[in-house]
Amino acid sequence: MQHIGSMLSSHPRAGADDTDARARTVAALHACAQACTSCADACLAEDDVASLTRCIRTDLDCADVCAATARLLSRLTETDGNLVRAQLEACVVACRTCAEECEGHADHMEHCRLCAEMCRACERECMEVMRALSA
Amino acid sequence: MQHIGSMLSSHPRAGADDTDARARTVAALHACAQACTSCADACLAEDDVASLTRCIRTDLDCADVCAATARLLSRLTETDGNLVRAQLEACVVACRTCAEECEGHADHMEHCRLCAEMCRACERECMEVMRALSA
Amino acid sequence: MQHIGSMLSSHPRAGADDTDARARTVAALHACAQACTSCADACLAEDDVASLTRCIRTDLDCADVCAATARLLSRLTETDGNLVRAQLEACVVACRTCAEECEGHADHMEHCRLCAEMCRACERECMEVMRALSA
Amino acid sequence: MQHIGSMLSSHPRAGADDTDARARTVAALHACAQACTSCADACLAEDDVASLTRCIRTDLDCADVCAATARLLSRLTETDGNLVRAQLEACVVACRTCAEECEGHADHMEHCRLCAEMCRACERECMEVMRALSA
Repeated sequence: MQHIGSMLSSHPRAGADDTDARARTVAALHACAQACTSCADACLAEDDVASLTRCIRTDLDCADVCAATARLLSRLTETDGNLVRAQLEACVVACRTCAEECEGHADHMEHCRLCAEMCRACERECMEVMRALSA
Repeated sequence: MQHIGSMLSSHPRAGADDTDARARTVAALHACAQACTSCADACLAEDDVASLTRCIRTDLDCADVCAATARLLSRLTETDGNLVRAQLEACVVACRTCAEECEGHADHMEHCRLCAEMCRACERECMEVMRALSA
Repeated sequence: MQHIGSMLSSHPRAGADDTDARARTVAALHACAQACTSCADACLAEDDVASLTRCIRTDLDCADVCAATARLLSRLTETDGNLVRAQLEACVVACRTCAEECEGHADHMEHCRLCAEMCRACERECMEVMRALSA
Repeated sequence: MQHIGSMLSSHPRAGADDTDARARTVAALHACAQACTSCADACLAEDDVASLTRCIRTDLDCADVCAATARLLSRLTETDGNLVRAQLEACVVACRTCAEECEGHADHMEHCRLCAEMCRACERECMEVMRALSA
């Protein structure tokens, strides 16, 4: 996360109070996107893959949404607040939906347990950064 | 667009009435993402790039948001309606923001004129498919 | 494909002889990425998903590689020829691998038949544009 | 990086000796993709953006290539070794090209200095994981 903070701080438009919240959120978005990509692939290798199709689908969606959100949030030049907010709102839905699905499998699959954890952390950070950005 | 409709129609969960609207939207999302990627790069090669930084930024954001939205909309297995709707809403904001910016340069730069056109078409399709999906 | 050609032609650095080949390839890359995303999702909804895990995996990889390649090829400003060539080479491998896998299911699943067709078309265009770019 | 290692270790196909190298590389790819996205955006906000167009272009390419490579490397199910190798080779070219460009601006722009550092680290990890995977 430290290198993300350093990148954001070295930006000509930096200096705003939201750098820390922003860096934490970008880190959480990357961790969540990676966890979802990994979890979808791990589900695919499970014997009972047929019972995990909803989990794979929400994982794939969440990975795509988090990756796009991380890019928007990494940019500080000429930001459109409405767009960032709308994308963060979609991301909160993606993380929550995926967390709820993975939590249902968490007691018998470690990759779902970890993925749910990462989704919940990301959901929290997205909500927090929305507050920081609109403050 | 035809090949997108064929792909969606060959899906085990197809048969829904929304295939046409969905295929049109996915095609518009790809066209918009490509136009925005191209337009950002064309702005970068213009002599007055310094006056086009907001255009480049909104192009890049719009390309990322459209690409993610196209993926979600290409999937029909175990769809979460709330997530698709939230992502489409963010996409409408992205397309509108980028269209407004590009329209301001449309009379002296053809790539901005075309990009604005593609953004408006995509904005329209996203709004229409939201209606089709919630019908 | 027409709108991609228009975008590329409106670029300050356009005028090169390779615009047509480039536009055809970007169109093929988008079609292939969409087909692969759709096919992975369609496989997920099949009754015998357990026998389609390799197909889903190659679909997902191919979609990611094609999407990245389409972006590089959409840019004309300060292009690094070595990078474009290396990425096109990886893309040819992705398309061929996915085509071979999907061809094995083509006779009993229309989405695999279509996806294989799109992968082969994309493989061909990538090889052709490599020739055009190094000419 | 720890959470990436945990995700990979919880995969049904894990157990291979390459988990550590793979986790380090995925972490480096995410860090590099983020740095490149940030650096392109920071360059856009610099007064002399007109002299940074090549830097922005290589940043954008490198971010796209790293993001795709990170996804492929996060998957362990039915991996095609040839594709992973070809994509890693393209990624090495992307990181090296971007590092060389950013190094040229490193002494007067901190975001370029950091980005070059991240690109070099990523280039190294990609080469190392190629060795680990072919061992």
